[in-house]
Amino acid sequence: MLEKISILGSTGSIGTSTLDVVKQHPEEFQVVALAAGNNVEEMIRQAKNFQPKVVSMATKQLADQVAAEISDSIKVVWGDEGLIEVATHSDATYVVSSLVGSRGLQPTLAAIEAGKRIGLANKETLVTAGHLVMEKAEQRKVDILPIDSEHSAIFQCLNGERKEDVKKIILTASGGAFRDYTREQLATATPEMALKHPNWAMGAKVTIDTATMMNKGLEVMEAHWLFAVPYDQIDVLVHPQSIIHSMVEFQDGAVMAQLGTPDMKVPIQYALSYPKRLPLSMPALSLSDIKQLTFRDPDVKRFPCLAMAFESGRIGGTMPTVLNAANEVAVEKFLNKTIPFLGIEAMIEKTLSEHEVIKNPQLEEIQHADQWAREFARQLTF
Amino acid sequence: MLEKISILGSTGSIGTSTLDVVKQHPEEFQVVALAAGNNVEEMIRQAKNFQPKVVSMATKQLADQVAAEISDSIKVVWGDEGLIEVATHSDATYVVSSLVGSRGLQPTLAAIEAGKRIGLANKETLVTAGHLVMEKAEQRKVDILPIDSEHSAIFQCLNGERKEDVKKIILTASGGAFRDYTREQLATATPEMALKHPNWAMGAKVTIDTATMMNKGLEVMEAHWLFAVPYDQIDVLVHPQSIIHSMVEFQDGAVMAQLGTPDMKVPIQYALSYPKRLPLSMPALSLSDIKQLTFRDPDVKRFPCLAMAFESGRIGGTMPTVLNAANEVAVEKFLNKTIPFLGIEAMIEKTLSEHEVIKNPQLEEIQHADQWAREFARQLTF
Repeated sequence: MLEKISILGSTGSIGTSTLDVVKQHPEEFQVVALAAGNNVEEMIRQAKNFQPKVVSMATKQLADQVAAEISDSIKVVWGDEGLIEVATHSDATYVVSSLVGSRGLQPTLAAIEAGKRIGLANKETLVTAGHLVMEKAEQRKVDILPIDSEHSAIFQCLNGERKEDVKKIILTASGGAFRDYTREQLATATPEMALKHPNWAMGAKVTIDTATMMNKGLEVMEAHWLFAVPYDQIDVLVHPQSIIHSMVEFQDGAVMAQLGTPDMKVPIQYALSYPKRLPLSMPALSLSDIKQLTFRDPDVKRFPCLAMAFESGRIGGTMPTVLNAANEVAVEKFLNKTIPFLGIEAMIEKTLSEHEVIKNPQLEEIQHADQWAREFARQLTF
Repeated sequence: MLEKISILGSTGSIGTSTLDVVKQHPEEFQVVALAAGNNVEEMIRQAKNFQPKVVSMATKQLADQVAAEISDSIKVVWGDEGLIEVATHSDATYVVSSLVGSRGLQPTLAAIEAGKRIGLANKETLVTAGHLVMEKAEQRKVDILPIDSEHSAIFQCLNGERKEDVKKIILTASGGAFRDYTREQLATATPEMALKHPNWAMGAKVTIDTATMMNKGLEVMEAHWLFAVPYDQIDVLVHPQSIIHSMVEFQDGAVMAQLGTPDMKVPIQYALSYPKRLPLSMPALSLSDIKQLTFRDPDVKRFPCLAMAFESGRIGGTMPTVLNAANEVAVEKFLNKTIPFLGIEAMIEKTLSEHEVIKNPQLEEIQHADQWAREFARQLTF
């Protein structure tokens, strides 16, 4: 069956890798609609190459710039409504949700409501509204297929297994660019230093989140919702080579792991082709060339963001939303060099401590908490 | 459903571990019949503990010794007919085939013919008669569940996957006791040195096979038959820690692996409980305690038995039978100190070179080739 795909965030690193996968399997996948932010040039290229029915940009001005360069047969839309139009296009059977940050939530919910199969790379969707998203997915009988390499690994490890046999989910973490930094070194770490991430080609926001280990914290929450596993059954293991992408321990002591060369095309394609696998031209993993894989426990004294994420997840309600929003503001400030690296954790901690949690929040309450946290964090200085 | 189990080789290391597993789950497993060789004392203990309906020993004399010590309600039998009686007992639903060497073949075929589910630890069954065994299992619609840790790992990695997506099976190998020996050191290696095997508690024959890497060669042939995969799609990878028990590479580049503390109870229980998993009290795998896993390609210059096994497997027909028989004789001679360690490979090589292969052999032809190889090898001196 031909999968007809809309991509939210088509010019980002997940989006462009998704299009690489689509191009390798024209008999399996076809592009219906693409949504991006500000990258006019790349969107023009994508529109010409893939001939979608609709493309969307962040603003009318950007949309006009794109429209001027591509075929009139492609509809050009913009803004929040543009995202929803891409997410719910009637021709689409599958939506890849790979916007960065919490603005991925609304269009993803709309896509689920419209009954589309979801390839989920936007972790904030589950972090901020996991209970609403999974509930709606169940109501609409929609599959949510993880695109994050870690969650894809877990999903693959659970293939053919019974949920009740799962003892523990073990998320591996590269440890990020500052894995071996002392607290003193972290105090003077710069965005440039963080952006030299060793294993994965990723966007700036995710790269900084990896350096603080907040990325792993958000993934812990994502795993909690995706696999319906309590926080006590989720472990994080630092594995600098990023060859084992994650693991599942079962009640008989067996551990299943998924390994591979770090390339996002593997989990992306798996999310699109599941339950089948398709050929993917890439160098085979050679463990005898790699020679060794190493492991250690995460150090939450040096990287307290991971502990804050676990704690926010356990508290639940609006707390993860606030954690995520404060983190987004803090990372932006760090990238703009208005706060130091350790300002990120301090800003999040302060925001969390001032938040009054709402249990079982509805969408409006989540949005309100999100906004409150952003405004509160923005006025903080360090 | 209660699984009613007969064990061929109940006093060996697989047999006693199987009984450990059975004891942990009386609501799932029950012992029907036990067969052993010469270990009277252990058989008496097992018969008293598990109250089987039948027990079998190698000879009438040994059987009488056992009968004198246990309840009259337990039938005591012996010899080849005793093995067949245990393998085909009408109460049994499941037969664990864990005899050492090629005498496991006949009773295993009888158990398949009788429609029993098979837990297979006796690799010679598939090495010498893989085409007959798998054909009969298919005819009788009998599941053959691997008990070897490597094949169990592969079986677990294939859970929920499509056969056509498999690109490669990767068998891991500890490398055995002489992993780091030079050829000069191998020339003077003794049985005592080999029997200090680092990771697994095993019988003497298997331990020597591990030191020559013939064990891995036999496992390659076993994997070929169990998973219907050509030899070109089977790799061996030396992994001294024996934590990754084996892997499967798929056509999308993903690699699935099964890991765990080296303990035969895990694959044994999985073979008995599949497709479920059951709790098994054992220490959880801690990769942060183990710290590193290492890998290297096997060195067939130092360990030519592995290459001979691949070649015999590719030639097929009666060649694997001859390889296996010559190896059994050679290992016995080495354990008796009548040949040196490097005499094992030389004896096998000489026997292979003198054998005229019969293609698609029937059982009698296999038995004839087996006997010829044993006689030929016995008269060799080094």
